[in-house]
Amino acid sequence: MATTSKQYKVIGEELWKGRAEKTNAELFALTYGALVVQLIQDYEDYEEVNKQLEKMGYNIGTRLIEDFLARSNIGRCVDFRETGEVVAKVGFKSFLNITPSVTHGGLPIAASPTRSSTASPAPTIPGATFTLTLDENPLAEFVELPEEALEGGLWFSNILCGVLRGALEMVRILTALCLSKFTYHSSDSNAGHGYVYLRCVARGRNDRDQSHPCQVSRGRSSRRR
Amino acid sequence: MATTSKQYKVIGEELWKGRAEKTNAELFALTYGALVVQLIQDYEDYEEVNKQLEKMGYNIGTRLIEDFLARSNIGRCVDFRETGEVVAKVGFKSFLNITPSVTHGGLPIAASPTRSSTASPAPTIPGATFTLTLDENPLAEFVELPEEALEGGLWFSNILCGVLRGALEMVRILTALCLSKFTYHSSDSNAGHGYVYLRCVARGRNDRDQSHPCQVSRGRSSRRR
Repeated sequence: MATTSKQYKVIGEELWKGRAEKTNAELFALTYGALVVQLIQDYEDYEEVNKQLEKMGYNIGTRLIEDFLARSNIGRCVDFRETGEVVAKVGFKSFLNITPSVTHGGLPIAASPTRSSTASPAPTIPGATFTLTLDENPLAEFVELPEEALEGGLWFSNILCGVLRGALEMVRILTALCLSKFTYHSSDSNAGHGYVYLRCVARGRNDRDQSHPCQVSRGRSSRRR
Repeated sequence: MATTSKQYKVIGEELWKGRAEKTNAELFALTYGALVVQLIQDYEDYEEVNKQLEKMGYNIGTRLIEDFLARSNIGRCVDFRETGEVVAKVGFKSFLNITPSVTHGGLPIAASPTRSSTASPAPTIPGATFTLTLDENPLAEFVELPEEALEGGLWFSNILCGVLRGALEMVRILTALCLSKFTYHSSDSNAGHGYVYLRCVARGRNDRDQSHPCQVSRGRSSRRR
């Protein structure tokens, strides 16, 4: 019987409570912040910083997956839907102690040029995408980003996309492409709180030559200091 | 009654087990490793990398101390000996989940030019220094440093010195100067295991203009992968 979403949640919680070494999250966030600041000083170009963060994340992901597989004892996922559940409930939980919500979706099949524009909605490949919503972001927890960086296009937490891409690429034939959306609830009572959305799209082998960067949106601090 | 070393150990353990958020240590170590690699690429000069790490650590230390004081409820230390105990048993424990051993020492008073060279050993200021010995180093736990970097003078974990200097500077009139020693037990059965020594020296106000960098020695991985 396939492992259910609830069972993955239990596995994630057990892994987090287990023997793996931990460090203080504030120290981690401040160290990550120092890394981002260094890249901004180096490249003076937010788009380049985003790329570098993704690249660093990729290298980290290819290392973390070994440890993850050894500790979690999780086998091959039957489909991309299951991958999404494992990433959210076991991966994020065991490394960052958060559990993003995960929504699964289809991927529209590119419309044929002969198709009539009045036809029924475009067909989709079911279960080809999942979107993770992080309503808390340990990377940005103790960080206050200057407006200039946010407006300039910095994706502060873009390293997460790289980690995910690197880790998934090590265990699946299909690689994953992550896209980003960003919502900033400026009118919320909890001003300054933003959500990070991370969208993963299953890709076939033939898509490997496409060089879509794996991106995540701007992470805003949810706890300003 | 003054708090004893054993009591500080208990406080440190309680803080670590407490409500403070945590993250996975491997993710932290790999992120720190990415930061060091970035600095090496930027500066191409290990001495400059050491300086930058110390500077980053200083900024982090000035932030972490706020959280530390709020969580630990520890008052002003009566002397530098007590400071050493708090740093080792409460500070390191609550942020990195390690407890370095701490040894206290004196600081030789500079010899007077009129003193005879045959006189008794130089007098010292008692309790003016403490040395922390880290026999495990979470920063370097999952990192394998190239020989070239080690031989070139990289102090991989130098950020720790900065953190300590920044944190102590925020709570004491006396600032701290950290010096480094390094021992590499190449003949140990546990080959590749190194110790990090971190030496703090109490400094008077008049010493503030001295620009001794706060340094820690090279951290070698104790768990090679």
